[in-house]
Amino acid sequence: MNDEQLRAMRHSLAHITASAVQKLWPEAKFGVGPVVENGFYYDIDLGTTKISEADFSMIEREMRRIISEDQHFEHSTKAIDEAINWAKESNQPYKEELLNDLKREGTTVAKDLDASEMGTISDGEGVLSEVGFYTNGDFTDLCRGPHVESTGKVGAFKLMRVAGAYWRGSEKNPQMQRLYGVAFATQEELDSYLELLEQAKLRDHRKLGKELDLYTVSPLVGAGLPLFTPRGTILRDVMAGYSNQLRQSRGFTKVWTPHITKQELYEASGHWAKFGDELFLVTSQETSDKMALKPMNCPHHTQIFASQPRSYRDMPIRYLETTTDYRDEKTGELGGLNRVRSLTQDDSHVFARPDQIEQEIDGLLASANELYGTLAMKLRVRLSYRDDSDAYLGERELWNSAQAQLKSAVEKNGLEYFEQEGEAAFYGPKIDFMATDAIGREHQVATVQLDFVQPERFKLQYADAEGNFQTPVMIHCALLGSIERFLSVFIEHTAGWFPFWTAPEQIRILTINDTVLDYVEEVERVLSEIVLMQPLKYNELRVTRDDRNESLGKKIREATGMKIPVQLIVGPKDKEAREVSVRTQGGEEKVALDQLQSYLSNL
Amino acid sequence: MNDEQLRAMRHSLAHITASAVQKLWPEAKFGVGPVVENGFYYDIDLGTTKISEADFSMIEREMRRIISEDQHFEHSTKAIDEAINWAKESNQPYKEELLNDLKREGTTVAKDLDASEMGTISDGEGVLSEVGFYTNGDFTDLCRGPHVESTGKVGAFKLMRVAGAYWRGSEKNPQMQRLYGVAFATQEELDSYLELLEQAKLRDHRKLGKELDLYTVSPLVGAGLPLFTPRGTILRDVMAGYSNQLRQSRGFTKVWTPHITKQELYEASGHWAKFGDELFLVTSQETSDKMALKPMNCPHHTQIFASQPRSYRDMPIRYLETTTDYRDEKTGELGGLNRVRSLTQDDSHVFARPDQIEQEIDGLLASANELYGTLAMKLRVRLSYRDDSDAYLGERELWNSAQAQLKSAVEKNGLEYFEQEGEAAFYGPKIDFMATDAIGREHQVATVQLDFVQPERFKLQYADAEGNFQTPVMIHCALLGSIERFLSVFIEHTAGWFPFWTAPEQIRILTINDTVLDYVEEVERVLSEIVLMQPLKYNELRVTRDDRNESLGKKIREATGMKIPVQLIVGPKDKEAREVSVRTQGGEEKVALDQLQSYLSNL
Repeated sequence: MNDEQLRAMRHSLAHITASAVQKLWPEAKFGVGPVVENGFYYDIDLGTTKISEADFSMIEREMRRIISEDQHFEHSTKAIDEAINWAKESNQPYKEELLNDLKREGTTVAKDLDASEMGTISDGEGVLSEVGFYTNGDFTDLCRGPHVESTGKVGAFKLMRVAGAYWRGSEKNPQMQRLYGVAFATQEELDSYLELLEQAKLRDHRKLGKELDLYTVSPLVGAGLPLFTPRGTILRDVMAGYSNQLRQSRGFTKVWTPHITKQELYEASGHWAKFGDELFLVTSQETSDKMALKPMNCPHHTQIFASQPRSYRDMPIRYLETTTDYRDEKTGELGGLNRVRSLTQDDSHVFARPDQIEQEIDGLLASANELYGTLAMKLRVRLSYRDDSDAYLGERELWNSAQAQLKSAVEKNGLEYFEQEGEAAFYGPKIDFMATDAIGREHQVATVQLDFVQPERFKLQYADAEGNFQTPVMIHCALLGSIERFLSVFIEHTAGWFPFWTAPEQIRILTINDTVLDYVEEVERVLSEIVLMQPLKYNELRVTRDDRNESLGKKIREATGMKIPVQLIVGPKDKEAREVSVRTQGGEEKVALDQLQSYLSNL
Repeated sequence: MNDEQLRAMRHSLAHITASAVQKLWPEAKFGVGPVVENGFYYDIDLGTTKISEADFSMIEREMRRIISEDQHFEHSTKAIDEAINWAKESNQPYKEELLNDLKREGTTVAKDLDASEMGTISDGEGVLSEVGFYTNGDFTDLCRGPHVESTGKVGAFKLMRVAGAYWRGSEKNPQMQRLYGVAFATQEELDSYLELLEQAKLRDHRKLGKELDLYTVSPLVGAGLPLFTPRGTILRDVMAGYSNQLRQSRGFTKVWTPHITKQELYEASGHWAKFGDELFLVTSQETSDKMALKPMNCPHHTQIFASQPRSYRDMPIRYLETTTDYRDEKTGELGGLNRVRSLTQDDSHVFARPDQIEQEIDGLLASANELYGTLAMKLRVRLSYRDDSDAYLGERELWNSAQAQLKSAVEKNGLEYFEQEGEAAFYGPKIDFMATDAIGREHQVATVQLDFVQPERFKLQYADAEGNFQTPVMIHCALLGSIERFLSVFIEHTAGWFPFWTAPEQIRILTINDTVLDYVEEVERVLSEIVLMQPLKYNELRVTRDDRNESLGKKIREATGMKIPVQLIVGPKDKEAREVSVRTQGGEEKVALDQLQSYLSNL
């Protein structure tokens, strides 16, 4: 089934929902009923009657009756005044309002609504001639279609929720009830979608973040400013450390820049004119300095590049900085780690000669490939190019060469990709990475962005072999993107069962009784000497001990609740045999103490 | 010679300076001439004549003549009106102004001046009776003394500099010339002080910071906001890493908090009322949130402690965070790394039961002792206690116990200490660390501060063994203090010759010619496998290669200029003998390739 058929099916289900509601509540007044991602909704005004989830089975039963009758979707048209009369007589004031707007303003009407829902037919020059209707059974609706042929051809559906929604999105208008449903071509697809939702709910990083004690939010500190506990900080550090290690092995060196700057920096970079009203402003009470919190790091990094004369032999110069940027998001839009005001970026900038672009992109793609491969997330990339418009800065020749180098590096790294013209930023082409998580959702993660403009604006230069000054190209790249947002994806991808090398608490030793305490100390000594060397180097084991006077069952339940990847159970028999019982998600097995190091290093 | 004698000597030199100036420029009008640290100055008005450093030898010659005459310092007194007449007749308008103020306001006059310089004698109730004078040779000055007996008894001196200074410190008054000198009891002491100044100048971290490419300052970013280059960032990371390692081995775990907060956090902590006008304010353009940049981290850390219920068994809870705080210093006061607006603290907070104070302080003192011992800086500590006033919050009993625990921990760690009553903060006693650098200067570095107040204000609690809620004590501690300020001390302490394990570029390989390039690769492979394990663990060698077609002499000069601790010189003979010439500050020696690892690990 193609997308258009799926949309027709979902929109037909919106009509069927409205038919059922009209049957059950004949006084119902209808707003609009568009198709949305994975389904549809219909806005309904039932006066003081409130639909609740308890009513869903009754509505669904009525919908199934209509479907089983296989009613034909009958198309018809009316002249506009005729249509308005129809709305009046049917006691449908919202439709009447829409039709009056249509009459007055033609097809340009009602930008707040999806015009496709409104049955308008223009003569091709924006002047309204007549409006379309569809009828199934007793129910007629203003509608442009298309629909499936008959109500029997709508696939599988489920009503999901009901929520308040203001008519036409304005608080000044009456509040209606928006009834949402999901729909797919087959019951199988619907079931797997519902299963996905169920899984996503269990994996919700806000829920797991609290259960696994990863971060907290304080109303005194403010929304969108999460504070990371010891466990969450380990996750941050391990992931950022790995991301840095991949680039440090390719010649990147760390730099450090402050989180604030005078506005002059952004006036010079051009960000002030473009994004000045999206920044957190910083006021000095001691001086008249006008300052801002940095929302990105590139302008700061240019100042380090510019602090020394540079020669073509020094290039490329590669800076790496994991640092926190601040973006003035509306607090209503902030939740969990997905969207925050404090974004820590594993940022890097290469200052390269134009002929070095491919080699540098290649290194960054290889790093991204390795990182997401290690995390078992499938990557694909979008190559965003310029189009023929004059909206782009930088020489055309440089663009052509750079775009070819990007594509060549992507192909060399064997990455699945697609290309989009006209999607580049005005200052350079880019590569966006999409990673697929364990339940099939795709997330935008890393980006590699070329920049022909900032080096110009900051007058950055290097001396070429002839001693002439040339302008370098900048390559922006964050592999994780924002660490906070990455963690929201990673927590849900793993459902909190973090890979061994990343787990905040990797091993918990559970004692069966106190007779083994001396042996536990011996086990701890063995563990304290194990340092994992890959994927992240110098990764010391993080081990705790539960030697409380509690039942083993309780200890296992608690350790499993905290999703500790390795539980080492130690009882008198283990002590005697000089082994431990290793309990992982894969099951339980005995491992000799002198085999523990090699066992754990291979996890 | 005691302090009082030294002051008398220096003040006598101020008179001798004025005598000499009067001899050379009879029209000179004099302000005041007090004693300052290491010397003295005199403020002089010579009209349009400007004294320059070129005049110093002439002035000093005249001073030495006066000294060689061994003129007696003759004390006399005058009634106030008689004194005013003297000033008028002597054409000394500044003295006249001082005397008129004295007459009008008695001994409470002229708080902007050092009263001891003004020769006033009160009758003990603030009413002026007469004023004192001292005369040597032809020169008479309003003065309370004391002086040395005669001009021959003034030790060794040197004029140092001349600078503009407004009369009585106000821009509205005439600008005078302030002539500075240094003076000591013996020529030997003077010489070693001048030598210290010379050394300090060579070690100036602003000069070395530029020469060794450690950090930069951008006028676009702003004063007091240094940006750290790759080399400087290595220094930061190595030092912070070591400081953290010392505490992580004692049970501290890292946390992460944002750099901004709503003002509510500081209203709750009490900082807003006390320091609200010293903060950088942050304005959201999207919301009405009132926010600030954090100037310290304790309030943020309390919110992590408060995010979970805590039991006496969980205590102490130890958080560690290297994070940047922002303080709204006046930009005129900012220079180098000594005083900055962006201070990165290697901060930590312990939440402890009152009976755990000593054990926790002990661990922190041992860490500080180890850190500064490793850096070859002598430590001594000041114990700051409360006094009997009621300016302190928290129970008296808790204070007494805590102070005793601090002292016991200091003694246990064998630290040189002194105690000061009345120097504690109102919220708890503290320990300040002073470290002596290689040229004998003492710097305030780490602090350990107890806090009885914030846990109360944030209503922090833990359940004791009986299930009752108790308030923990907080222990604030930064071992390096501000990393920026620490680096300013460390750069000057080492004069840029950083200890091997901290050096940004530890080893530079210098080739004699291109026939050795294959052998150099072999040397590099050996080096790439060396990872230092102490003092800092997992410290990979930082190695570069200079294989340019330049003379060895030039390569050595450049490497020595960058203060690279180890230069490995590789020539054809070294290749043949499978060795390298290791050049350090200590000299040059041959080391076999297979001995290189053990040689370098012992540096």
